[in-house]
Amino acid sequence: MLHLQCDTPSRWLEQVDRDLPAILIDHAHCEKKAAGTALNLIFAYVENIELCREMTEIVNEELEHFHMVLDLLTKRGIRFRRLTPSSYGRELNELVRKQEPQKAVDRLLVAGLIEARSCERFHVLSEHVKDAELATFYGSLFESEARHHTTYTRLAKDFAAEEVVMARLDELAALEAAIISRGEDLPRMHS
Amino acid sequence: MLHLQCDTPSRWLEQVDRDLPAILIDHAHCEKKAAGTALNLIFAYVENIELCREMTEIVNEELEHFHMVLDLLTKRGIRFRRLTPSSYGRELNELVRKQEPQKAVDRLLVAGLIEARSCERFHVLSEHVKDAELATFYGSLFESEARHHTTYTRLAKDFAAEEVVMARLDELAALEAAIISRGEDLPRMHS
Repeated sequence: MLHLQCDTPSRWLEQVDRDLPAILIDHAHCEKKAAGTALNLIFAYVENIELCREMTEIVNEELEHFHMVLDLLTKRGIRFRRLTPSSYGRELNELVRKQEPQKAVDRLLVAGLIEARSCERFHVLSEHVKDAELATFYGSLFESEARHHTTYTRLAKDFAAEEVVMARLDELAALEAAIISRGEDLPRMHS
Repeated sequence: MLHLQCDTPSRWLEQVDRDLPAILIDHAHCEKKAAGTALNLIFAYVENIELCREMTEIVNEELEHFHMVLDLLTKRGIRFRRLTPSSYGRELNELVRKQEPQKAVDRLLVAGLIEARSCERFHVLSEHVKDAELATFYGSLFESEARHHTTYTRLAKDFAAEEVVMARLDELAALEAAIISRGEDLPRMHS
């Protein structure tokens, strides 16, 4: 359903155990960036009314999640601050082709893969953390990220034939899996 | 209350009468841009939690208005399309100073002045147009734009003393009035 080609490696759970506050702060930044991605897609494809409606829903939901994570940080006395982002999002966005309509397909599929990976990691987190409140919180976010992945993949089919979109999704998912399997040192939501 | 230093000239109402569809399409673009402005302020000042909460509200409301205008266009058989924007927003944004915290003050005040002018124009439109549905629609948007103006002006006071903010608002409002009094040929929401 999520089209991911690898599971989160256990290495990431060691990062979670080592620096959970950094993961939580990065999560807040990710929700804000996800809202920005959806809004940028409205700007880019404003003549596609269905896309605009779906993106508006996603902007609203991501901003709601952003505030839920901010509340969680406040409750735990973790100060929200700027963080060097992981290179995951940048590396994926570099795979977007420059010409339309391939560009639209890739932007939507990359956004969808990031949602899919967040979804998978929220699930892993909800099973891993001892803290019951956190486990419930991540369990509750799981569903919306899965739905966003489905929405992005479906919208990509407005810009190319289904089999073309699914073949490209396979390619991008393989590259995403390579980035995630390699990992990186900074403890982040997508490290 | 709106801190505007001139009323909309009657010249603009002639543009409205000449090309109402262009004004309506431009209005949809303005709502989308207003959502973008609010989201960019979250990105820029993410450590200011009050600002983030207020901007989230504004993003949601502007996107809701964007869809209300799209529905209105659909109902009237007007195709939503790209339009060359008026130079109003660009000229105002060029007045933003480059150094913080002045930059934050100016970004918020400029965003607030654009809301104030939209508010004034919605009121003028609601009194001018013969079409009852349009008049009611613009009457209903009036209140939220006035509230957004107040929110932006209040948030600017997080970045400078009240008297400094109000003096700068006077300066910017005088420049805004000069742009509006001069006008421009393209029929737009802020021409």
